[in-house]
Amino acid sequence: MSVPFAIQDLYPEHRATCYGCGRLNEHGYGLRTVVEGDEAVSRFTPEPFHTAVPGVVYGGLLASLLDCHSMAVAAWGLYRAAGRELDDGGPPLYCATGTLTLRYRRPTPLGPELTLRGTVRGVEGRKVLVEATLEAAGEVRVVAEVVALQMPEDFGAS
Amino acid sequence: MSVPFAIQDLYPEHRATCYGCGRLNEHGYGLRTVVEGDEAVSRFTPEPFHTAVPGVVYGGLLASLLDCHSMAVAAWGLYRAAGRELDDGGPPLYCATGTLTLRYRRPTPLGPELTLRGTVRGVEGRKVLVEATLEAAGEVRVVAEVVALQMPEDFGAS
Repeated sequence: MSVPFAIQDLYPEHRATCYGCGRLNEHGYGLRTVVEGDEAVSRFTPEPFHTAVPGVVYGGLLASLLDCHSMAVAAWGLYRAAGRELDDGGPPLYCATGTLTLRYRRPTPLGPELTLRGTVRGVEGRKVLVEATLEAAGEVRVVAEVVALQMPEDFGAS
Repeated sequence: MSVPFAIQDLYPEHRATCYGCGRLNEHGYGLRTVVEGDEAVSRFTPEPFHTAVPGVVYGGLLASLLDCHSMAVAAWGLYRAAGRELDDGGPPLYCATGTLTLRYRRPTPLGPELTLRGTVRGVEGRKVLVEATLEAAGEVRVVAEVVALQMPEDFGAS
């Protein structure tokens, strides 16, 4: 299954303010995640000032991207577990991060586009288990294991 | 032991470019970590646009702050394990993140200053084990367990 929209496009307005992936946050990263076959994919090119040491991408940015990416993957997992299509127009399903474990395998070079891939490993009640990777220049740089928690529909509504 | 400077003040220039805590990165967060008794403490006030959902701090920012904070704690741990003072003028000791595990216990309200605390749980060869917390409004919001890896002295030098 591949779809022509980003998973974040489906977030209702009161959940579209995220600094990492909210379409209504004009200061942030604007991460967008699309379904490509069996995985969900995000792409992002860091700014020149997103440095750890010179030539290496800031690990906090990588953590941020993997977190937002994984929440999109988790939302997708909820839809599939419910037998629903992402764009069926029904009540939006949504997760927040419970536990985020990041293994920094090697430095991430600053310059090339980053590719994040993610899959759902399981859905257990309101918990969604996600595995995600971040690649640059053809090599996996960071691996994430994430426990996402389904939030009530009004989470974030004022 | 309390010292009147930030641990990041001791990083040499080629490692002071970090988006999270580098004094030479004018775009970043400029996190500073000081020793207060038996723990190392950082304080940071997010910007109004650092949102997850309205009124809640972006989890990626919290991950970023805990990562940089923990690397400062880890560097401090290396000095102590070597029987050295932070400001002894000798070769600087420095870590990068190996594994970062973050448990988001409850939402972090956007507005109040955040307080990060960290302690060294152990030093095993080039590995430093760090435990850190992030508090807002008097409650712990996120708990981090970190495996930091000592880097060679020339890491980041061009």
